[in-house]
Amino acid sequence: MGFPTTATAVARDDASAPTESTTSTAPEVTRSEHDLLGDRLIPEDAYWGVHTLRAVENFPITGRPLSSNPHLVRGLAAVKLAAALANREHGLLDAERSAAIQAACREILEGRLHGEFVVDVVQGGAGTSSNMNANEVIANRALELLGHSKGEYGALHPNDHVNLSQSTNDVYPTAVRIATIMGIEELLTALTALEDSFAAKATEFRTVVKMGRTQLQDAVPMTLGQEFATYAVTIGEDRERLREASGLIHEINLGATAIGTGLNAPAGYAEAACRHLGEVTRLPLVTAVDLIEATQDMGAFVHLSGVLKRVAVKLSKICNDLRLLSSGPRAGLAEINLPAVQSGSSIMPGKINPVIPEVVNQVAFEVIGHDVTITMAAEGGQLQLNAFEPIIVHSLHESITHLTAACQTLAERCVNGITANTARLRESVERSIGLVTALNPYLGYAEATAIAQEALASGRGVAELVLERGLLTADRLEELLRPERLANLGA
Amino acid sequence: MGFPTTATAVARDDASAPTESTTSTAPEVTRSEHDLLGDRLIPEDAYWGVHTLRAVENFPITGRPLSSNPHLVRGLAAVKLAAALANREHGLLDAERSAAIQAACREILEGRLHGEFVVDVVQGGAGTSSNMNANEVIANRALELLGHSKGEYGALHPNDHVNLSQSTNDVYPTAVRIATIMGIEELLTALTALEDSFAAKATEFRTVVKMGRTQLQDAVPMTLGQEFATYAVTIGEDRERLREASGLIHEINLGATAIGTGLNAPAGYAEAACRHLGEVTRLPLVTAVDLIEATQDMGAFVHLSGVLKRVAVKLSKICNDLRLLSSGPRAGLAEINLPAVQSGSSIMPGKINPVIPEVVNQVAFEVIGHDVTITMAAEGGQLQLNAFEPIIVHSLHESITHLTAACQTLAERCVNGITANTARLRESVERSIGLVTALNPYLGYAEATAIAQEALASGRGVAELVLERGLLTADRLEELLRPERLANLGA
Amino acid sequence: MGFPTTATAVARDDASAPTESTTSTAPEVTRSEHDLLGDRLIPEDAYWGVHTLRAVENFPITGRPLSSNPHLVRGLAAVKLAAALANREHGLLDAERSAAIQAACREILEGRLHGEFVVDVVQGGAGTSSNMNANEVIANRALELLGHSKGEYGALHPNDHVNLSQSTNDVYPTAVRIATIMGIEELLTALTALEDSFAAKATEFRTVVKMGRTQLQDAVPMTLGQEFATYAVTIGEDRERLREASGLIHEINLGATAIGTGLNAPAGYAEAACRHLGEVTRLPLVTAVDLIEATQDMGAFVHLSGVLKRVAVKLSKICNDLRLLSSGPRAGLAEINLPAVQSGSSIMPGKINPVIPEVVNQVAFEVIGHDVTITMAAEGGQLQLNAFEPIIVHSLHESITHLTAACQTLAERCVNGITANTARLRESVERSIGLVTALNPYLGYAEATAIAQEALASGRGVAELVLERGLLTADRLEELLRPERLANLGA
Amino acid sequence: MGFPTTATAVARDDASAPTESTTSTAPEVTRSEHDLLGDRLIPEDAYWGVHTLRAVENFPITGRPLSSNPHLVRGLAAVKLAAALANREHGLLDAERSAAIQAACREILEGRLHGEFVVDVVQGGAGTSSNMNANEVIANRALELLGHSKGEYGALHPNDHVNLSQSTNDVYPTAVRIATIMGIEELLTALTALEDSFAAKATEFRTVVKMGRTQLQDAVPMTLGQEFATYAVTIGEDRERLREASGLIHEINLGATAIGTGLNAPAGYAEAACRHLGEVTRLPLVTAVDLIEATQDMGAFVHLSGVLKRVAVKLSKICNDLRLLSSGPRAGLAEINLPAVQSGSSIMPGKINPVIPEVVNQVAFEVIGHDVTITMAAEGGQLQLNAFEPIIVHSLHESITHLTAACQTLAERCVNGITANTARLRESVERSIGLVTALNPYLGYAEATAIAQEALASGRGVAELVLERGLLTADRLEELLRPERLANLGA
Repeated sequence: MGFPTTATAVARDDASAPTESTTSTAPEVTRSEHDLLGDRLIPEDAYWGVHTLRAVENFPITGRPLSSNPHLVRGLAAVKLAAALANREHGLLDAERSAAIQAACREILEGRLHGEFVVDVVQGGAGTSSNMNANEVIANRALELLGHSKGEYGALHPNDHVNLSQSTNDVYPTAVRIATIMGIEELLTALTALEDSFAAKATEFRTVVKMGRTQLQDAVPMTLGQEFATYAVTIGEDRERLREASGLIHEINLGATAIGTGLNAPAGYAEAACRHLGEVTRLPLVTAVDLIEATQDMGAFVHLSGVLKRVAVKLSKICNDLRLLSSGPRAGLAEINLPAVQSGSSIMPGKINPVIPEVVNQVAFEVIGHDVTITMAAEGGQLQLNAFEPIIVHSLHESITHLTAACQTLAERCVNGITANTARLRESVERSIGLVTALNPYLGYAEATAIAQEALASGRGVAELVLERGLLTADRLEELLRPERLANLGA
Repeated sequence: MGFPTTATAVARDDASAPTESTTSTAPEVTRSEHDLLGDRLIPEDAYWGVHTLRAVENFPITGRPLSSNPHLVRGLAAVKLAAALANREHGLLDAERSAAIQAACREILEGRLHGEFVVDVVQGGAGTSSNMNANEVIANRALELLGHSKGEYGALHPNDHVNLSQSTNDVYPTAVRIATIMGIEELLTALTALEDSFAAKATEFRTVVKMGRTQLQDAVPMTLGQEFATYAVTIGEDRERLREASGLIHEINLGATAIGTGLNAPAGYAEAACRHLGEVTRLPLVTAVDLIEATQDMGAFVHLSGVLKRVAVKLSKICNDLRLLSSGPRAGLAEINLPAVQSGSSIMPGKINPVIPEVVNQVAFEVIGHDVTITMAAEGGQLQLNAFEPIIVHSLHESITHLTAACQTLAERCVNGITANTARLRESVERSIGLVTALNPYLGYAEATAIAQEALASGRGVAELVLERGLLTADRLEELLRPERLANLGA
Repeated sequence: MGFPTTATAVARDDASAPTESTTSTAPEVTRSEHDLLGDRLIPEDAYWGVHTLRAVENFPITGRPLSSNPHLVRGLAAVKLAAALANREHGLLDAERSAAIQAACREILEGRLHGEFVVDVVQGGAGTSSNMNANEVIANRALELLGHSKGEYGALHPNDHVNLSQSTNDVYPTAVRIATIMGIEELLTALTALEDSFAAKATEFRTVVKMGRTQLQDAVPMTLGQEFATYAVTIGEDRERLREASGLIHEINLGATAIGTGLNAPAGYAEAACRHLGEVTRLPLVTAVDLIEATQDMGAFVHLSGVLKRVAVKLSKICNDLRLLSSGPRAGLAEINLPAVQSGSSIMPGKINPVIPEVVNQVAFEVIGHDVTITMAAEGGQLQLNAFEPIIVHSLHESITHLTAACQTLAERCVNGITANTARLRESVERSIGLVTALNPYLGYAEATAIAQEALASGRGVAELVLERGLLTADRLEELLRPERLANLGA
Repeated sequence: MGFPTTATAVARDDASAPTESTTSTAPEVTRSEHDLLGDRLIPEDAYWGVHTLRAVENFPITGRPLSSNPHLVRGLAAVKLAAALANREHGLLDAERSAAIQAACREILEGRLHGEFVVDVVQGGAGTSSNMNANEVIANRALELLGHSKGEYGALHPNDHVNLSQSTNDVYPTAVRIATIMGIEELLTALTALEDSFAAKATEFRTVVKMGRTQLQDAVPMTLGQEFATYAVTIGEDRERLREASGLIHEINLGATAIGTGLNAPAGYAEAACRHLGEVTRLPLVTAVDLIEATQDMGAFVHLSGVLKRVAVKLSKICNDLRLLSSGPRAGLAEINLPAVQSGSSIMPGKINPVIPEVVNQVAFEVIGHDVTITMAAEGGQLQLNAFEPIIVHSLHESITHLTAACQTLAERCVNGITANTARLRESVERSIGLVTALNPYLGYAEATAIAQEALASGRGVAELVLERGLLTADRLEELLRPERLANLGA
């Protein structure tokens, strides 16, 4: 390339790499930490420690830190809080340490310290680095609260105390479930708003008759209200499915530890931790019956992603319809008008484009792609663990948050402002050849077909041809072809 | 290409094209039928008619006729039977014609006349050609039963009588639902058999201790029984999800006619038809609340496909595990032995390959691909109808039947014959460095890490290093490291 | 279900299971064959043997036998023929046996004995059963030619002679490549026909002006000829890509034997076999440089499937356009008319639907789904081999043959008969607000926007508003707005 | 949820929403700008204008601004620079304005003003908002350079001057191509590094014999060097395919304007703009032959994504292999050792996990999912434009940058540090039953099978059984079974 470009890969440009921030704040105060690979200097003001540092260096993939998923950060804190309570209850943790850990976790739940969750969202290790990032931040904050300096792990240790009776393999999936439930709640709220918007339009357009279409060909009359009501109904069904799928992830494996056998967790710990976590989160969580299965299985996430995909398919279909019905203004169907929200073209003055449905379509395509990613990651699990849960979590997170934003935008910036071209719609019914379908029971399929063919060839109307052939009286015909009757509007 | 090849495309080789069979049986007796495109000769012995002929000519795609999906053929017959009953009940059809139609439908339900369903399974037209194929076969068989010749549609007409009060757009989706429910029942039976096979092995291997693995690295001990029990549990969960998804497709739109407004169907017809169909099929079918939505929506199929994909993901993961655990015989894990079902190699004598899990993996990949196909077809629906339902039906049908066959084969030809290399498995636990995890609560993470590192570097055992360092007494250590305790086998 | 249904799974209904045919032809003459699992009786008239029998029993998945892919059967025969020639050349096979094997292979190339290829297309074992099916059929036919009875393998053995210097792992991938090349050739022919159809229409519609649309909104004028020309151009590009991708699979691994090290094949064998195979097939085949890589790699198939997906995406987009442009007849765009090929509805008389584009859309969705299947199967390969090649082959075969049929059908039954509604199209240009874009350089974006907004609000024309405001003279305006100029038709 | 959570959706948390930044800097100086929807206040220090503001409000989807894709920002600037030169050359733009625009563009190419590209990467409108964001930033910067205040568009206008002779529909696709080419170059560099790493290991392990495996079962001997060489070879092939695919996107549609007819661009402009753009970027760009086709077609992106998917499949397969070969340390294959880069577990001391291959697997799954997203977006294009190019661009960008990071990480942090367990590997060959394959030509398939079966059943070695049966002399046998001969190491 002829023009200047930075040597580093794009992906790293926006990464909040701790080591680099180290060098940028020049003569920095540091502390030394140790792991099985040796010693490393950590910036003194960092709450994260050596395990986090290794992970940041190992996974410079997306540049997006864990903190970009605040639900997940809170989920981790909630689990650690519940564990501290359960460990205290079982006498494994003394009161002081437990209280300090709890306090640190509550700060995170309140939104503090999120900036310390710096590991990339896409990471190897089945979530170990996410868990260790949490262990270290909580330990160091707890140490501060106890009057110690950060890094004085002899007093309170990320693994021995914060992670006590736990393993990444039960902590991380549980935190992910909590985060996902929180995200789904937001999506359900947005879907409800969208459903309400369509329902309101269905009422507004209740008596606006129009031609229904099958296979894009004129079919039989209906009302625009009926058309918009289906959008409300279909979204309502999706909400039900989504709530069911969310229900499935209320089953957690906390207490499973490494592979589900509960090694190093005392008897009764799983139940206690689940109870505390339920109280902390106010969610009706339950412990899975078979913890070994629950530890390795991604079925509930695959299922949830499948339902999100279903939502995406519906939204995309609806937006395709909205774009088609509003095509024009003059050479299209021009049945409805979407509100103008921005200029449509840099070259074509006055052009207005259906940009809001278009962005929803794109989110739908993204969600459908994520479903494939999640499917492959789930299929790739081996033996007692799925090492690829981070990409599942990341993909689900994007699907949920983008769908939420898309639904809100669609309701507020598009559906609520839609208007109908009522006269044009009624005219399309009156000119329609499809009216002949209503005469099918009276004329028979063969005769009706002949009339339809003549209407098409001659450009004439169905009614006049029927009268001309003396097949029905004018009064009878008028009653049979009344659009409101055809649309079954009374129902 | 240098060697002889037929000029026609492969896809056509096995197509049962009526026109060609016409010419091949030379001086054939024919009848003439008429549609809006003109007249065509139909072989006299054919129960199908001109609409079917057009469709066979228009869709030479896969070479597989509707008859390759007998559940669908039965589903169409069941719908037509229920409609004949409902039409009689509403006085729209006289007793004689209704009885003749019913008799023809019952023959199809008993497995006769399936060879007359000749339209390609992949077809344009949202199922119209499938519906018309059924209308024509039933009409002509009913005509015969009434003493008429085939094609005497003045006496009993495919559209005016067999299709009375119906449209493809409610007939076809309803028939498809019935067919799918039947297919799912068979799959559930096969899944139950597979679950039972795994459960039986779980009992058999209950006390066989082995190393659990996370991320393919030695983790902590468990039993082979626990490992196989997870397979049973996870399949059991899938069965529940599948039953729920099947429940959703018990909601039908019969009575919706063209677009859901019920045009040309009398009041009460939808309920009557649903009631009769429920009796014919002995299925608890219900009529959808919003027939317009139900007519255009593919959500239930997308959902079902998503659950089938979930099943596929689980099966594939299980088969990956089985192939890995049985790798060897000497340079692999060699923990279990799959039964030999065929020679493994044309060049390597005595080689036995895990061919049954391999074929299951492949079916899983196929099902996952079909899910994308179904997703795209569902997304492509427009306005009041989805024109792409045939490919959805075809893909679902293949997913369901292939999964059914795969589960049966896996249970019968693989799982039931699996044996364990018990001694090798116990030895792997005793040599394991992962045992140190169990000492974590007594030694602390840092000390335990040091021992693990030394064990790895020196090739020595964890126990001897702990004793050498005087960290625990021999008795205490033996108790702590007892495999059955570690595997939580008492639980 | 209340109505009679067969106990066996659907998938098995149409399987040509040899054992069952054995029992059906009553007091059958059989021969006994032996493999590492023991002895089995084989119908005397069967050319396949015990290995094939095992495979048929092991893989009752799709019910479709290898013979449903005649290109693959020919590919296997071509490879065996080339091997027999190379083995003779290297003195490994005596003249008589080599000649007999060659003769048997040539019969298969001529289309005979295909019915003996009975193993299911979806099979475990990386193609071993396909290879053994071929070895057995060829051996038994060769034995017959030599005057022996079938099964007298002491005289000529399926493994020791027919499979000499070979392994499934080089035979099967090579045969698959030959089959795929043959299929692609047919697809290229069909694509060329479709391209020609569009090009002919482009010429026919060269001067038919119409509104171009972006984002479904009226944009600026163009001609229908230009619109159809893009379809020809885009298909032409796909053909080039497809030919390139086909080129990549001319690289074969024959001579690699089991894992690519060439074990048991003499020096020079790979080159000789490739040379003979090139002559037999008249294809410019080359031996891969690194046979170990070539034996395990599915990259060329993933690549080819990606290109097929590209073709599918294009075809689907084109068919979406055709369906949209022909929507109507009265409440749609109604710019073009697709030829009627069948009645469109069982309830709506005279309705004509775009069934041909619809079936092409569905094939496209299928091909896109297959691409995911192929991707997963390729990703699942392990170490020195990909065990999942059969599902890759099956998916590719369906994609290629269905696309071929779809292109032929689209060209012959749809594109060739398309007509234009010329007057309506010209009128849409003259009424268009989009004309104002052409005045942008003369009025500026801001002024042009104001005129567009007034035109939209008032329903008036752009030209009259420009004249009313005195912005341009009538002559100048007429010249600027001439549709042919705007469409750049001279170019 | 029981614990505090912010009301706003997650997706909005990190969005750089201009309106909100407006309110945060309190008594801000603003300017007023006008579009077809009315007037809006813009922060005085913002280089973007009212069109950008609308877009930021309309698309609160991902929270990631255009500036997160610096290649795309540079691509837009390069196109605008080339257009300013071509417009000057054609006398459409005066020297002063052209120079000011050029200067502003060059600043962006140098990395300045990127923070002004604030529209969300996922946006409706086919890229219009990206183009308008660029037009506004460049116009305002050019105005400053000319001594004007921002917003004085009478002097230099975003549409009339910066966008002169252009449309979003040619600008955006061209900028995207340039950005993509730049990204692919970085990926090619990373792939080369990875290929080199594998090649170096292949040399290092050239003589390390081991068992090759097919279908996870012991097959025949090879060397670890051969195994690693295949990884280098296969990546090298991918690089070639990627370079070819990149070549296809050197074809641009600049000069096409709205739909490809070149409306409002003077004759010769397309060629001039392409020439200037080639000089600015030092890329061998060419103008597409059919600009109408080039404007609507996404084929080259679908193709490129297919090749990226191919790369992903290969990388995933390689990482699967690396994880499998390094499984252990004691209960796995333990053939190779991956370098330890972090602690593997929060509960299992000393555990080391293959975290680098794991993260690469996850990136691969993401890329494969993106391919589906891109496919759907491409399929959704209608008539003269694809409105969904932004999600295509976003998905491609993520695929390319994440693959680049994954390859770098894999090479540097994993492959370069791999070591072999040479003694264990040789032993596995010597104990192997697969050795019997080498004796196949001397013993025949049947006899060799019998020996293999006895070896397996008895646990004895192949060699001793052959000697015991007196089938070969000891000397002959030793020569035949020499691992280096079997691995064809001399070749």
